[in-house]
Amino acid sequence: MNLIENLNWRHAVKAYNPEKKVSQEHIDKIVEAARLAPSSSGLQPFQVLVVSNPKVKEKLAEGALNPECMRDCSHVIVFAAWDRYTEERIDHVYNFTTDERGLPRGRFSSYTDKLKAIYLNQPASENFAHIARQTYISLGLALAQAAELKVDTTPAEGFSNAVVDDVLNLDKLGLKSVSLMYVGYADNENDWIASMKKVRTPKENFVIEYK
Amino acid sequence: MNLIENLNWRHAVKAYNPEKKVSQEHIDKIVEAARLAPSSSGLQPFQVLVVSNPKVKEKLAEGALNPECMRDCSHVIVFAAWDRYTEERIDHVYNFTTDERGLPRGRFSSYTDKLKAIYLNQPASENFAHIARQTYISLGLALAQAAELKVDTTPAEGFSNAVVDDVLNLDKLGLKSVSLMYVGYADNENDWIASMKKVRTPKENFVIEYK
Repeated sequence: MNLIENLNWRHAVKAYNPEKKVSQEHIDKIVEAARLAPSSSGLQPFQVLVVSNPKVKEKLAEGALNPECMRDCSHVIVFAAWDRYTEERIDHVYNFTTDERGLPRGRFSSYTDKLKAIYLNQPASENFAHIARQTYISLGLALAQAAELKVDTTPAEGFSNAVVDDVLNLDKLGLKSVSLMYVGYADNENDWIASMKKVRTPKENFVIEYK
Repeated sequence: MNLIENLNWRHAVKAYNPEKKVSQEHIDKIVEAARLAPSSSGLQPFQVLVVSNPKVKEKLAEGALNPECMRDCSHVIVFAAWDRYTEERIDHVYNFTTDERGLPRGRFSSYTDKLKAIYLNQPASENFAHIARQTYISLGLALAQAAELKVDTTPAEGFSNAVVDDVLNLDKLGLKSVSLMYVGYADNENDWIASMKKVRTPKENFVIEYK
């Protein structure tokens, strides 16, 4: 199946079968798609945390809008963004990039100087808004990868950031939770949305073409 | 090729061949992947504008960080977000959804009442930040779809929102530009990044697993 078929296949699952676990091989592929996502200036300002441990999931469930999904799904993927841009973080990414490419460090310094001039002089809230956006590219690709594998998912913003950040010690990692992705296999009897038609803005209202 | 292979294939192209145009069939598929993207509460609070008209592209180029990409690419896709959440917009989406599903209007009113209670009482800037994030899921899927078709792309935030909004009259549509995606075929001689290794955060620094 191609991407469009996979996107039509998937939906945001509302109930998971707690007995069915997703293989590590499939999780690795979903994480890999998330990792390959492009990001602004290639900074990739986020990480993912993959939680299958039942005790940790139980703690996370305390802050979840759909605690049953949290408990019953196989894995929870947390998209966690850098809490801020710093000179060190920008340099670290670009030094790694030039090293990997066999280029002298500083090869992109005129560009990184511009980035620093922008980010280090902007309000923290504006920077975090920009960082958080990048995680959604990755979330989208992870959802698509799961669909390719016929693994069910639910993208979720309905959770307490405070609980998730606390349970996973994100503060110490310099991260903040942004979104979740429940991963597993649907409980077909209770996934009430499964039988409903997928609805999207009709094409004629979605796209405007200037030819 | 599967999604991971396609994501490895793609890169953010730095120079386009102005002679090579992308077929309408391919553009339609890219837009369809963007349209099928999930979004928070299914509100799908954005549209895309697809610009291939050279005069319009020329005007947009005035505000672009990479005006050559804007001019030389085949199509520019603008991801434009709702400027705000309103009661009417939320009702419109949910009325359309229930109509499409053959359900009575108001079937999800307890849910939409909660959404309205949140969004209509939050600062406009917070809501727009939330809306803008959703467009990045769509951007990611559009990039993936183009890669599946072996169409080159460049996701771009480097442009003047004021110029794009003005040229495309987004204000009148209740929209604000968020990101761009250049679409076309690379100019292989001048696309200096093509020969460079794709660099991403190594897996061991990207994912933390709680098993």
